Amino acid sequence: MSSRRRVKERYSNLNYLIHPRSVALIGASSNRLKIGGIMWSYLQSFPGRKYPVNIKQETIDGVKAYGRVSDIPEDVDLAVIAVPARSVPSVIDDCIRKSVKAVIVISAGFGETGEEGRKLEEEIKNRIANTNMVLLGPNTLGVYVPSESLDTMFVLREKSRRPPDGPIAYISQSGASASGFMDMAEYHQYGISAFVGLGNKLDVNENDMLEFFSKDDKTKVLCMHIESFADGRRLLELCRKITPYKPVVILKAGRTETGARAAMLHTGSMAKPSQAMDGALKQVGVIRANDLLELFDYSRILAYQKPIFGPNIVVVTSGGGYGVIAADYIEDRNVGGELRMAELSHDSKKRLREKLPSFASVNNPVDLTGNVTDEMFDHVFRIVNEDENTDGILAFLLLQTPYTTDRLVEIAWWWFKNGKKPMVPCIIGGLHSEEVIRMLESRGMPVFPDIRRAVLSLRVLYERGKYLLKIGKNRSGAG
Amino acid sequence: MSSRRRVKERYSNLNYLIHPRSVALIGASSNRLKIGGIMWSYLQSFPGRKYPVNIKQETIDGVKAYGRVSDIPEDVDLAVIAVPARSVPSVIDDCIRKSVKAVIVISAGFGETGEEGRKLEEEIKNRIANTNMVLLGPNTLGVYVPSESLDTMFVLREKSRRPPDGPIAYISQSGASASGFMDMAEYHQYGISAFVGLGNKLDVNENDMLEFFSKDDKTKVLCMHIESFADGRRLLELCRKITPYKPVVILKAGRTETGARAAMLHTGSMAKPSQAMDGALKQVGVIRANDLLELFDYSRILAYQKPIFGPNIVVVTSGGGYGVIAADYIEDRNVGGELRMAELSHDSKKRLREKLPSFASVNNPVDLTGNVTDEMFDHVFRIVNEDENTDGILAFLLLQTPYTTDRLVEIAWWWFKNGKKPMVPCIIGGLHSEEVIRMLESRGMPVFPDIRRAVLSLRVLYERGKYLLKIGKNRSGAG
Repeated sequence: MSSRRRVKERYSNLNYLIHPRSVALIGASSNRLKIGGIMWSYLQSFPGRKYPVNIKQETIDGVKAYGRVSDIPEDVDLAVIAVPARSVPSVIDDCIRKSVKAVIVISAGFGETGEEGRKLEEEIKNRIANTNMVLLGPNTLGVYVPSESLDTMFVLREKSRRPPDGPIAYISQSGASASGFMDMAEYHQYGISAFVGLGNKLDVNENDMLEFFSKDDKTKVLCMHIESFADGRRLLELCRKITPYKPVVILKAGRTETGARAAMLHTGSMAKPSQAMDGALKQVGVIRANDLLELFDYSRILAYQKPIFGPNIVVVTSGGGYGVIAADYIEDRNVGGELRMAELSHDSKKRLREKLPSFASVNNPVDLTGNVTDEMFDHVFRIVNEDENTDGILAFLLLQTPYTTDRLVEIAWWWFKNGKKPMVPCIIGGLHSEEVIRMLESRGMPVFPDIRRAVLSLRVLYERGKYLLKIGKNRSGAG
Repeated sequence: MSSRRRVKERYSNLNYLIHPRSVALIGASSNRLKIGGIMWSYLQSFPGRKYPVNIKQETIDGVKAYGRVSDIPEDVDLAVIAVPARSVPSVIDDCIRKSVKAVIVISAGFGETGEEGRKLEEEIKNRIANTNMVLLGPNTLGVYVPSESLDTMFVLREKSRRPPDGPIAYISQSGASASGFMDMAEYHQYGISAFVGLGNKLDVNENDMLEFFSKDDKTKVLCMHIESFADGRRLLELCRKITPYKPVVILKAGRTETGARAAMLHTGSMAKPSQAMDGALKQVGVIRANDLLELFDYSRILAYQKPIFGPNIVVVTSGGGYGVIAADYIEDRNVGGELRMAELSHDSKKRLREKLPSFASVNNPVDLTGNVTDEMFDHVFRIVNEDENTDGILAFLLLQTPYTTDRLVEIAWWWFKNGKKPMVPCIIGGLHSEEVIRMLESRGMPVFPDIRRAVLSLRVLYERGKYLLKIGKNRSGAG
């Protein structure tokens, strides 16, 4: 088989990992206290064919069980393996015999546990070397694809909720933090096209998945948490191709020597901190995140808001105190980067004056004071959108002021969606604020409960815009 | 009157601002849509004597109203003024005539609006110059003292909740952000001994309130958001005296040139950014915050957790991915400061091994993996508390793992309260996590939903411990 044909076939097999027509679960159980029982129950929502495989049981929940994958009479696109590590190689043999397109090895106890586990990994590697079968894992949560109702994760749904369908592909090398991330994502209605847990990356790695989702129409943003680079050069090549069309956000944990050592113990992979790689990733337009919350914020704002094509930010607030802190962060290079406070035009200031109380400030921050009404916010958003000196808007929507109503939320939502200048909203408060935030998030409007996070997200939108301009993309996004 | 006697009398009058026996509200109204109506209704919870003052009305809500403060037959400790700015000077005259101890000028329209307002301020200043009456404001929300059921704030309680009674005195120069801060504080059960809104600081300033609360037994931590220093030298002197006994956390907004300009427009006060002041504040043991969330986090952790007396942090996690990111932040000088990852003793590692699964990591981060049980957490907390190489603990309490139960929350709570080594807990997740966090917070255990915020709080506990050691305080807190 030519290498070119093999690459093509490998790609189409990756497709079966995410979009299988049929799934076999090896290690399926009817006992819901076991991992194989949890997984089998969650597989019931998958609308395609599904087969329980169990060497000891005749039936699982009344469904005929097969002793081996190769006993299944129909084609099997995806085999999910949840048996003890030492049994995995022989199961893999059977999957190869059956011409399974993709396997996910959920089982732990491989390279991450020491020498014996590493030997098992070598065995598996040798077995799949001359096939086109793709293998995800071992030591992974597997995949979760909302649009396919495919969920191979053994973490209990009551404890770890699943996010809704949406535009972000989420790829992670770390299982536990992925489960926390998705639980948080569900709470904030952050929608994903798919989650892929890389685990020990014996075969399928972050580059395979980056390439795959770069060609997936549903996916608008690629979001990745990794602890080691499988192939740094290939990653850079891929990102150079992808970032002109889709933003790529990467959290590379193990930035420090100590962190890198911890990563090595965690996933068994070498994770040297590399300054050179940092610079190279920036060059090819990758947005970097330092932690899970940054990964969450940056991927979300890039998915739900337009890029910003200049550094000039106007702050609209009804609380002067917030405006001062925001101005500090925008002008602080460590937080705002190259952002700066916009200088509003003389004309804008005049127009602002017309409808604002005399003690409001028409400079930047535009401070509407506690006497603000819904209409004043609407007026200000119109004017700052039309001002040529502004590129982006930081909007404090304070729900505590006496003369604003629930209409303010609708006004902000309208300008968030339709404004020429991208807006990032910030709401600080308690119970009522939390409720409003969740309501807005369910519509697809990210809201930040923290000034620093809002400014960092504005910075990321600007870095995205600047990158697009640098590589010759115009503002409409076309090349 | 000698200057010494005047200082003493001024201090006792400050006491009437926070602990009045009787309150008059000038501008009281029975119309709940007016500021004077909202304030009068909230004043009903105050158990002491209260008098509505209104020049036009005979009664307010069936209570006899007085035309002037001086018409009130009994003593008035505190007069709260909510009439238009131009009427304030004559009301002040009347308060002086009546020998009112303290006044709060809620009214806006003074120095923050321009020349005319500044003239009004001068008039008031001249009037009170030769009296011992203390004046808070103008342009302020006033005070909120939970233990006295005293609430002069006109922001609606439905929109802006009030925090419970507790150990933190919260002093702010910014009204709107104070209302957002307290709304957030209520949500997270952050308890305050009092809130004081400084407003334009015509008379009472941050130094007066710092000194006052430094002597208040209920107050364990002083927390302050200001945009200008009334008297930098006095502030430093005060802090030098206070910080050995009580932590002081200061957010000084207007750090940058642009931020300082915004602050000037906001409160009318000059707010030059000063590097020298930054260093001096650190010297006298002040903890600095960059924004409201840092002010919130740092004051809360200092109020509810012990200082840390060494830089060695152990990370306990059941998610390896979280551990790596935490290690990165601890070793990142910009976040962790002088913190470092602890090296556990040989003996501790051996004891950890005894009860942990073979694939758990007994290095730091201690990674209990997804198979963790409640008992394993308990075991690990015991051992890392006994290890002489550790000074503080970052604990990830992951609620998504299958074999942990609600008991984990009790175990963490026990070690948080009783452990020798201070613990900072971090919980990342969705709905269930949010519920658990709020439950723990209601018991007085701050929980961080973000790794960076948790590490910054550990750093602050260590900075506090290091300062106490430097000035010769021993670990028990005695001098």
